[in-house]
Amino acid sequence: MEKIRSAEIICTGTELLLGDIINTNASFMAERLAELGIPLYRQTVVGDNPERLKEALADAYSRSDTVFLSGGLGPTKDDLTKETVADFFGLPMRLDEDSLERIRKYFRDVCRKMTENNIKQAMVPEGAVIFENANGTAPGLAVEAPLPGSGKTVRAVLLPGPPVELVPLWYSGVVPYLVPRSAGAFVSRNVHLINIGESTAASILGDILDGSNPTVAPYCKEGEVRLRVTASAPTAEEAAAAADRTVGIIKESEVGRFIYGIDVESVENALLISMRKSELTLATAESCTGGLIGQRITSVPGCSDVYLGGCVSYANSAKEALAGVPGAVLDEYGAVSEQTAAAMAKGIRKALGASVGISSTGFAGPGGGTEKDPVGTVYVAVAYECGGEETVKVKRLTMSPLRSREHIRNSASTQALGLALEASERIGKALAEAAGRTAPGHLFDGGAGSDTFC
Amino acid sequence: MEKIRSAEIICTGTELLLGDIINTNASFMAERLAELGIPLYRQTVVGDNPERLKEALADAYSRSDTVFLSGGLGPTKDDLTKETVADFFGLPMRLDEDSLERIRKYFRDVCRKMTENNIKQAMVPEGAVIFENANGTAPGLAVEAPLPGSGKTVRAVLLPGPPVELVPLWYSGVVPYLVPRSAGAFVSRNVHLINIGESTAASILGDILDGSNPTVAPYCKEGEVRLRVTASAPTAEEAAAAADRTVGIIKESEVGRFIYGIDVESVENALLISMRKSELTLATAESCTGGLIGQRITSVPGCSDVYLGGCVSYANSAKEALAGVPGAVLDEYGAVSEQTAAAMAKGIRKALGASVGISSTGFAGPGGGTEKDPVGTVYVAVAYECGGEETVKVKRLTMSPLRSREHIRNSASTQALGLALEASERIGKALAEAAGRTAPGHLFDGGAGSDTFC
Repeated sequence: MEKIRSAEIICTGTELLLGDIINTNASFMAERLAELGIPLYRQTVVGDNPERLKEALADAYSRSDTVFLSGGLGPTKDDLTKETVADFFGLPMRLDEDSLERIRKYFRDVCRKMTENNIKQAMVPEGAVIFENANGTAPGLAVEAPLPGSGKTVRAVLLPGPPVELVPLWYSGVVPYLVPRSAGAFVSRNVHLINIGESTAASILGDILDGSNPTVAPYCKEGEVRLRVTASAPTAEEAAAAADRTVGIIKESEVGRFIYGIDVESVENALLISMRKSELTLATAESCTGGLIGQRITSVPGCSDVYLGGCVSYANSAKEALAGVPGAVLDEYGAVSEQTAAAMAKGIRKALGASVGISSTGFAGPGGGTEKDPVGTVYVAVAYECGGEETVKVKRLTMSPLRSREHIRNSASTQALGLALEASERIGKALAEAAGRTAPGHLFDGGAGSDTFC
Repeated sequence: MEKIRSAEIICTGTELLLGDIINTNASFMAERLAELGIPLYRQTVVGDNPERLKEALADAYSRSDTVFLSGGLGPTKDDLTKETVADFFGLPMRLDEDSLERIRKYFRDVCRKMTENNIKQAMVPEGAVIFENANGTAPGLAVEAPLPGSGKTVRAVLLPGPPVELVPLWYSGVVPYLVPRSAGAFVSRNVHLINIGESTAASILGDILDGSNPTVAPYCKEGEVRLRVTASAPTAEEAAAAADRTVGIIKESEVGRFIYGIDVESVENALLISMRKSELTLATAESCTGGLIGQRITSVPGCSDVYLGGCVSYANSAKEALAGVPGAVLDEYGAVSEQTAAAMAKGIRKALGASVGISSTGFAGPGGGTEKDPVGTVYVAVAYECGGEETVKVKRLTMSPLRSREHIRNSASTQALGLALEASERIGKALAEAAGRTAPGHLFDGGAGSDTFC
């Protein structure tokens, strides 16, 4: 079977082109293609317009042999992808009886009347491979045909636009179709860092960033830096080994202690994994982050074995009532202070009987702030017990007041989660040592007591 | 000044091409261009590769006169957009002293050392218009130059990749640059609805959706429907008047009572505006939404006059300790039940002395659920005092278990906020009547006691 040498993605739909919806299909397919080692040259979005789609197809096939299309398979008049692709290749359309029967069954199952325009969804280009759609009416399909005017064989893979249909169809239909057609192997590892800036990390890593195989690409996210290490080799095993060697070098470098995880989705994921290992529980007391820390933790399915809950103590009265902050602390030091942050972390830990308590209080802007603590100042704190004693660590974050409220809150929540991760690793190490097990060599560093970053 | 006839978007970055991040810049820029009445032909994503970027530029200029690029303006070696565009047009690069000074100042302001590689960000193509970047180091810029091999004048607008930099830079730099270069005036109004489906809204509105000027485009978001009304006219005033006439017709129709706002950013914004009018306060008790409701409310600057705070009562112990849910209610009805939702809303309202309390408890999946309440079932509740009596309303939401955890949590939080908005409007009406003021004609409808939607 002829191998795929390179691919492109074309997403159709006026709602995509005009920005009414965000293109998650492109990133989903791109990520899956990278996993299969299929080089991707370009992603394109065009409106529901047959001429522009044909032009985009011709463009794509001038570079690549396989094009993945999403959208435009539905029943309405502006769903034109299938017809346009068939026309592009000069293929006649035929009625696929199996698909029609599945569409009829789908409507029976959801107790809805099937309107006539749905029959259009069972029409397929001659010779197409059909992918059954369990979550909608339009089947996916793949066409393999000679490129008009060239004669080289190219492929088009057509998928429905709604992500709830496209994603399962990818795994059930597209992957089995692609695997025998994929050559070579690419393996990527993502090294996730906090408490270090992109340019500092880059200047420490130096030459490693210049390599061509593996490549190391730094990418700056709010409050985080990610290094993507990608290796290519004839087999997946060799590629993985090469990528892992480079990851090992990064781990041993000066940036190593700022790595919160390798190939983890987020710091909240890394934290839950770490806490679960030592059977720890977590509580949160949030002021300026307003629920964001809890929301991030609970976005991870299955977090309930670690996360007990917490409070959003936005008003001072809520800091007293829910987080148990003494009124005297608020009076003396104010709501945005090292002392209040510490009292919140301690208070919520006690209120819920958790192993670790974290907190945030600060000025996320655009209003508020004081001369001492201008907008962009956030105190994050952690309280935990280790070796019979309660440890409290407060970190004062100074961000540019020009940063958006969203940026300041996202960064602060990441920092609070980082403090919890440091605490979890310290407790884990102490537990391991107490049990006579080998403790991990170096621990994640939650950063200094005061940190300035953008 | 020559007008822009059509535009394209090219986003660069290997992390975009490989699907590591979702392309929100493309949708943001596309939406903004639509508002300015600039036709958009295509969106393209290419990796950090000068040859492929040049090819994409040549492609784009074969159709359009203006290309908007995002990404690749940073300090690292794989940031190549600016250099590639300069090379494409044959323009020399020069050091922009103003930009360098701003970059130096930026580093001083955030108390960080400026590494040498940052100087690269102050290099600009000869003749470029510079857009100062208040939220990062790389300035945006626009180039107007003859297209090589053709001689027609075309434009490139280059913006930094991080959305926290690109978005403010769009408004501060790009809009003033574009307005004199745009033809005609377009005005859009967004009518925001909850508690009504897209197809129901469409069937009620009927003919209004078929108009060509103004156009009314329905768009379905998680738990919401938005109707985008867009009118074009020779002047902005005439366009605004035409759009407003259509909005008036929609308000008077059957969908009117499901409108939570016109051109408001979100239901949380609408809620805060409504509660502020009657000087009401709000408290939240969240289980399955895990802080998301609090996070949404506190994402709005200045929310502290309304929002007191609340709890994330994820574990049952937290429901008792923080939301004051009686242990007997949890034992008898379970954590996911109408009774627990009601007790949470009442409990948190009492604990914080708030005018209105809202709550959520449910199964967001993918694990969990019972036969009676499968994954996708969420109870949201509101408790408030009106006319000396406490009213409690619970709504049972049934969403497809195929929906993502994120979708279920987003929709549930919107529904809880909708219940609070209904409560706020009812209290506001009662207060107005008691004071002998004219009460608003029709109130927002928070929906029935049980609601099934996808």
